[in-house]
Amino acid sequence: MTSQLHKKGEAWSARFSEPVSELVKRYTASVFFDKRMALFDIEGSLAHADMLAAQGIISAQDLADIQRGMTQIRGEIERGEFEWQLDLEDVHLNIEARLTALIGDAGKRLHTGRSRNDQVATDIRLWLRSEIDRIGTHLGDLRSALLDLAEQHSATILPGFTHLQVAQPVTFGHHLMAYFEMFSRDAERMIDVRRRVNRLPLGAAALAGTSYPIDRERVAATLGFEEVCTNSLDAVSDRDFAIEFTAAAALVMTHISRFSEELVLWMSPRVGFIDLADRFCTGSSIMPQKKNPDVPELARGKTGRVNGHLIALLTLMKGQPLAYNKDNQEDKEPLFDTVDTVIDTLRIFADMVPGIKVREENMRNAALQGFSTATDLADYLVKKGLPFRDAHEIVAHAVKICSDRDIDLADLSLAELQKFSPLVGEDVFGFLTLEGSVSSRNHIGGTAPEQVKRAIAAARAKLAK
Amino acid sequence: MTSQLHKKGEAWSARFSEPVSELVKRYTASVFFDKRMALFDIEGSLAHADMLAAQGIISAQDLADIQRGMTQIRGEIERGEFEWQLDLEDVHLNIEARLTALIGDAGKRLHTGRSRNDQVATDIRLWLRSEIDRIGTHLGDLRSALLDLAEQHSATILPGFTHLQVAQPVTFGHHLMAYFEMFSRDAERMIDVRRRVNRLPLGAAALAGTSYPIDRERVAATLGFEEVCTNSLDAVSDRDFAIEFTAAAALVMTHISRFSEELVLWMSPRVGFIDLADRFCTGSSIMPQKKNPDVPELARGKTGRVNGHLIALLTLMKGQPLAYNKDNQEDKEPLFDTVDTVIDTLRIFADMVPGIKVREENMRNAALQGFSTATDLADYLVKKGLPFRDAHEIVAHAVKICSDRDIDLADLSLAELQKFSPLVGEDVFGFLTLEGSVSSRNHIGGTAPEQVKRAIAAARAKLAK
Amino acid sequence: MTSQLHKKGEAWSARFSEPVSELVKRYTASVFFDKRMALFDIEGSLAHADMLAAQGIISAQDLADIQRGMTQIRGEIERGEFEWQLDLEDVHLNIEARLTALIGDAGKRLHTGRSRNDQVATDIRLWLRSEIDRIGTHLGDLRSALLDLAEQHSATILPGFTHLQVAQPVTFGHHLMAYFEMFSRDAERMIDVRRRVNRLPLGAAALAGTSYPIDRERVAATLGFEEVCTNSLDAVSDRDFAIEFTAAAALVMTHISRFSEELVLWMSPRVGFIDLADRFCTGSSIMPQKKNPDVPELARGKTGRVNGHLIALLTLMKGQPLAYNKDNQEDKEPLFDTVDTVIDTLRIFADMVPGIKVREENMRNAALQGFSTATDLADYLVKKGLPFRDAHEIVAHAVKICSDRDIDLADLSLAELQKFSPLVGEDVFGFLTLEGSVSSRNHIGGTAPEQVKRAIAAARAKLAK
Amino acid sequence: MTSQLHKKGEAWSARFSEPVSELVKRYTASVFFDKRMALFDIEGSLAHADMLAAQGIISAQDLADIQRGMTQIRGEIERGEFEWQLDLEDVHLNIEARLTALIGDAGKRLHTGRSRNDQVATDIRLWLRSEIDRIGTHLGDLRSALLDLAEQHSATILPGFTHLQVAQPVTFGHHLMAYFEMFSRDAERMIDVRRRVNRLPLGAAALAGTSYPIDRERVAATLGFEEVCTNSLDAVSDRDFAIEFTAAAALVMTHISRFSEELVLWMSPRVGFIDLADRFCTGSSIMPQKKNPDVPELARGKTGRVNGHLIALLTLMKGQPLAYNKDNQEDKEPLFDTVDTVIDTLRIFADMVPGIKVREENMRNAALQGFSTATDLADYLVKKGLPFRDAHEIVAHAVKICSDRDIDLADLSLAELQKFSPLVGEDVFGFLTLEGSVSSRNHIGGTAPEQVKRAIAAARAKLAK
Repeated sequence: MTSQLHKKGEAWSARFSEPVSELVKRYTASVFFDKRMALFDIEGSLAHADMLAAQGIISAQDLADIQRGMTQIRGEIERGEFEWQLDLEDVHLNIEARLTALIGDAGKRLHTGRSRNDQVATDIRLWLRSEIDRIGTHLGDLRSALLDLAEQHSATILPGFTHLQVAQPVTFGHHLMAYFEMFSRDAERMIDVRRRVNRLPLGAAALAGTSYPIDRERVAATLGFEEVCTNSLDAVSDRDFAIEFTAAAALVMTHISRFSEELVLWMSPRVGFIDLADRFCTGSSIMPQKKNPDVPELARGKTGRVNGHLIALLTLMKGQPLAYNKDNQEDKEPLFDTVDTVIDTLRIFADMVPGIKVREENMRNAALQGFSTATDLADYLVKKGLPFRDAHEIVAHAVKICSDRDIDLADLSLAELQKFSPLVGEDVFGFLTLEGSVSSRNHIGGTAPEQVKRAIAAARAKLAK
Repeated sequence: MTSQLHKKGEAWSARFSEPVSELVKRYTASVFFDKRMALFDIEGSLAHADMLAAQGIISAQDLADIQRGMTQIRGEIERGEFEWQLDLEDVHLNIEARLTALIGDAGKRLHTGRSRNDQVATDIRLWLRSEIDRIGTHLGDLRSALLDLAEQHSATILPGFTHLQVAQPVTFGHHLMAYFEMFSRDAERMIDVRRRVNRLPLGAAALAGTSYPIDRERVAATLGFEEVCTNSLDAVSDRDFAIEFTAAAALVMTHISRFSEELVLWMSPRVGFIDLADRFCTGSSIMPQKKNPDVPELARGKTGRVNGHLIALLTLMKGQPLAYNKDNQEDKEPLFDTVDTVIDTLRIFADMVPGIKVREENMRNAALQGFSTATDLADYLVKKGLPFRDAHEIVAHAVKICSDRDIDLADLSLAELQKFSPLVGEDVFGFLTLEGSVSSRNHIGGTAPEQVKRAIAAARAKLAK
Repeated sequence: MTSQLHKKGEAWSARFSEPVSELVKRYTASVFFDKRMALFDIEGSLAHADMLAAQGIISAQDLADIQRGMTQIRGEIERGEFEWQLDLEDVHLNIEARLTALIGDAGKRLHTGRSRNDQVATDIRLWLRSEIDRIGTHLGDLRSALLDLAEQHSATILPGFTHLQVAQPVTFGHHLMAYFEMFSRDAERMIDVRRRVNRLPLGAAALAGTSYPIDRERVAATLGFEEVCTNSLDAVSDRDFAIEFTAAAALVMTHISRFSEELVLWMSPRVGFIDLADRFCTGSSIMPQKKNPDVPELARGKTGRVNGHLIALLTLMKGQPLAYNKDNQEDKEPLFDTVDTVIDTLRIFADMVPGIKVREENMRNAALQGFSTATDLADYLVKKGLPFRDAHEIVAHAVKICSDRDIDLADLSLAELQKFSPLVGEDVFGFLTLEGSVSSRNHIGGTAPEQVKRAIAAARAKLAK
Repeated sequence: MTSQLHKKGEAWSARFSEPVSELVKRYTASVFFDKRMALFDIEGSLAHADMLAAQGIISAQDLADIQRGMTQIRGEIERGEFEWQLDLEDVHLNIEARLTALIGDAGKRLHTGRSRNDQVATDIRLWLRSEIDRIGTHLGDLRSALLDLAEQHSATILPGFTHLQVAQPVTFGHHLMAYFEMFSRDAERMIDVRRRVNRLPLGAAALAGTSYPIDRERVAATLGFEEVCTNSLDAVSDRDFAIEFTAAAALVMTHISRFSEELVLWMSPRVGFIDLADRFCTGSSIMPQKKNPDVPELARGKTGRVNGHLIALLTLMKGQPLAYNKDNQEDKEPLFDTVDTVIDTLRIFADMVPGIKVREENMRNAALQGFSTATDLADYLVKKGLPFRDAHEIVAHAVKICSDRDIDLADLSLAELQKFSPLVGEDVFGFLTLEGSVSSRNHIGGTAPEQVKRAIAAARAKLAK
């Protein structure tokens, strides 16, 4: 009977009087996407077998056979020699069938005290834990690249925008550090998610636990899980961790989309703040002059993909009764694609950031447009004793007049400025320069170059941990 | 220079001073999913070439060469011999490069007066139009299967539920016809979407049209498009049709999810209204007795996938400035997967419906539970002269007493019934039977077997058109 | 017993042994949002009563009483005097209770042969049909405003962008007409949705139809419905029309978001293509110089709201068994807010478009940047006999050299141009001007001023229908 | 000039030459929803004023005036006497205008060194922090109610389902504890979100910080914030915390939807596992016998609402350039409604759970259907030496035969059982009882009553912390 698993469904087919149709097989099979978890399936099985032997549920010989068989299967998979069969439905039955073919009855004993329900839940947590760690690394690389560029530009001035209107001058280093902050929160969230991923469902069996004297804590320790899932019904049907992860990933992509929007805008010729390295751009099949920022555009588009996966998973779980239902098989593809999208995007951005060429002259010219130091003039008047609201009113009048005459505030003479308020003195012009404006915002979180440098140093220390 | 397209980006690379990195190539390439549109790309190119020749933009010899080359390429693709190259980025450049390799300069002339922007927009519309027609066919098959089953059960009585509480008796044929209606509306929507898909973007070129004397109406006629897109900027950047299609597909899947929910429920042993054929079910690797309705469960889960794709596409287009942006490349995978999901699901359901085994006895027993004819008693009293609200009140009292005694209304004696209202006569018992109840709802849309048969006949006529 | 409906739930409470808690009342009541449908509820009730009388189910006197009572109630509602009571749960019971208070037993007879399930389905369709018509009007106003502005600028040149990089010169009129096309498709979709909204559910009663001899076609005719819903179970539980409408609304908002993105960008000082009238902008409480394009920004943000409502409705319906479930009460708020959002936004945009001040000089200067006529040079070479791909290659080289020297193609001398290709002649410079480029794209959908004018004329004719 | 803020936009209108239209006012105003944050706005202002005085930026007298004025305003708001004005746009300007009316110039000085951008970001974090704490309390109450019910039913047996097919017997206490676990993870997530909410944006001013010598750490300490946001551009434009919270809320509602689905199912007469207290149900206006589980149905429907808000917020932030844009105003309504929905739902569920009447007899009968102890028979054979896969095969055959004969496994005689396998002995019948099955799953997370009691005790200890 060693051949019993050669066809799909032979794990359960004795009760059935007709075979599953080919269309149904293809519709319900998962092997062509879940084989991605193969090495984690083996890792989980080995930990399970080790425990079964330690508890005397299987023999030491069985364990040795299983370990030997799994070593061979792992090699076959890594060398691309393993033959995945649609008929065997999923990664679990494919590996188990091969194991039984290799080692006989011991292979059949491996499934003692577990079910595919807790097995797949274990595999996907092992896999996701590993991917979260990779994402952490790539988030670190991207943040590190941002820090380097921010450091070079801690005193480079560009206009800070609100509503895409010139607001106040800021430094480019400060602007980049805003993204550093966003990606740092993303990293924090990944750590929080990881804690909830890193719990062992194995031992829940089909839904109710098992009558074998299993030792779940031993399995957890072997596999590096921090906790054991403490309710079997919940353990096999919980997909919170996948949803929470995807929500965190959607925030990563949201931040990427914001950065991308700015990169595309900054590279547009009318803005002209940066140039991306050629290797991150493509041209046009028809317009010979084009150099298009394809990478950030595509990344921005991929935000939709991850938002969509989040909705797919939430829709999937909505209204699902306990315990396992086949709907849950649909959790994998959205999750796999989310991981691939996030990792590819972070890698390419970490690569791209050092290749950003900053056009400082254009940034500076833009900051001289649009009355970016108007707030500084208002603050100047407040320091001379005016309530802020009144100062605001006065400067608004001055701006309107300058705007009509198409000049900047700094182009007004002292006499003209004094017409708006007698409080204005010679010292006002120091406050109307870009450098003066920027340096004056010198507190935690402010845009003064000194603060930016301090923030970068603190960030480096944090990242090094 | 016939080899100019051998590497990705050589369509536009003369302006670039460094090659695109391998990661960027992989990130931005689409050939591994957009090759699915290959035959439509060829069809579109042939129509374009035909027009170019008719307008004297290319020579008759060029046209003949292109036709010959494309015939060969089509054969290579159909036989699986075509070598798709990542370096050539997408389906369009892969085919064009092959064409130029086969026929030389004429191949290079094919791209005259068009751009990849309008080319891809044309391909995807041709492809989607064809898939919509397939969906129409499968919706027809499923509706036809529902009609057959409904016809067999136009007089089979089960409880109609609201709030999953027994409401009133209905016929199973009537219940199935509700799904017929839903899928009919889906078919209507597909026809409406098709009209908006079936418009020709080709001729918009990159974004502004072209300076060649093209004849867009000729191309539209060749390709069977009903209209020509009348603004070039819109033509290359519009993805409404993809979103509208996906929304219509999400409704198809929503209806599938509702039907699936009922199939799963009906097959649950406590309900026991139906049995699905073994070939649509699977078992358990651990519980030998299980026969699980995997197909409807998985289909219900796949609803999430399509809802997700809809959000992916809406997110993608949100805030996109004109005209084409690389974000739009992300339109394809959600669309492809939506089509695959809907078609696979409809096919498998059209197959599954005839295999539904109806357990009429269980249905009938359930209808006898839960006071399903209470409304009929109220209506009886109204016909004897009581205002409806008062009749409702009286029957509610009767139900409460029966419920406490764990009996049905029909189990009360005439004397007992008359205690609730002196208007009750001997004839009341005719109204309290399931058949009496069902037959009395005899108007358009009502559940009386006569009406159900009429609805089925009308539906068959509609479907045959 | 005329007071029977004074408290919530008295329509059904005889079977209950304890009252509903205050929290439950508030949680489950809908009157504070569904009273919005009050006048449609009355309209539906009057049509129902008219039919009941015509069929002899109620007396002519009952009908007259109901009409008199409803006239008074309508007046009370319109004058804001009607007292809505939470205890009466929803709009339907509030009105019915008031009717019964005013006219006695005839009021209680109104509910004969119907249920709240089909009543609410009828009300919401009547309401939505009316709102769709309003949306159609506002879409027409916005399109009309776009046409007027496009006509003024049918020859105003700005750079057409792809990837926010300068692509080819286009006219601003042409660019605006792209939005005209989008909103025209939206109007088409609204018409298609309307057909599916405009079907009568009344007569489905609770779920199975009614035993009274009703005439549904008469009711449909009275209320202006084009069809009768032909399956009672489907009629009370179908919310497709709400989902389809919301999807169409999401596309309206997606188009608004794209237009808004461009307005915000065009008004940014580095771009400077337009200025919005002050009355559509706001300032800053701290930065006196600010003039922010709040309206388009907020509209762009509101896209999320409607996408969200679409997901709310799809989630709501996922996996719902037949027939009516309380979940469906949640259909109203998303639908109401979608309608409000779309109508407010369209109104304000129709108002805002005529107030757009176009800065033609800035547009023209931008078109002179970025080699916008490079494609024209390539096309020129093709017309001289070069294959397109070779011409593209040559122009790419020329652009690279100009870019390094920071000059435009038109700044090269004839001799310099001829170094790239001996095919270049004196006539080349005519092709490198903006006007030459734009005029040459003279076919259906092209950007040539002549075509734009033709498109505007056709659009006006279409809109006038 | 104390009246300067009497009209909307007077905070910034000096630069404007025409007033904002009424429609624009209504479209852009937020006061009618953001007034909900009024008391937090005052709290934030007082902390800001305290710091300004401590730093010598305003005088002690100004501080005293501000405190006096704010005390009065708080009273007016709490007593419902405060007049909110649309013309004053938002909660911040309404309060500031009133303050200035009450105390004169000191009121105008309050806005020194801050902007509405950082002010609103602070208010919403203060508000959300407080709501998260309320949600924590309600999650605790619901979990506590689940524990009590689980304790009563730690040995009540019902069938555990997978795929809605009978799988293995479980205890009802164990089943309820699965929900306890879900809501516990929700509580964990709320704690994690709270850490990221609890950071101070104030001091970021409009976007770049301020030139006043502010002390942000003092403000943070006063307001109980754990950290200071360390980048001003990020501080005013970050809405991660809102998205992360809404994602966590969507999971709460997903769990509610699953529990609701089961409650509705369990209350359906064919299942009949429970009865909900009348006060959580409603009846029908037409069917006198109905008792509908409206509360769980409506809650299930409300899942869509929160999923929708999550998408609204993600869509809102997608592609937003730095720093503040008006789009962000749209963050509030989804957030407010999410909080209301979650809190109302949790409260009502915490109330409803103790009112669940368990029908133990029905549960037990259902567990006797469907071969729920088949796995136990297989495990029995394994313990006698058979490999699991072979035992599974044998039991599947036995089930098939019993199913055809419509009997249970326990109904087979020993002789019949031994025909399937000679390993079967007299002791087998002990393993085929429900109690035997349940008790045997006696390990962490298993369904044995002993384990369930242990899990409940541990949960109580955790909850008490």
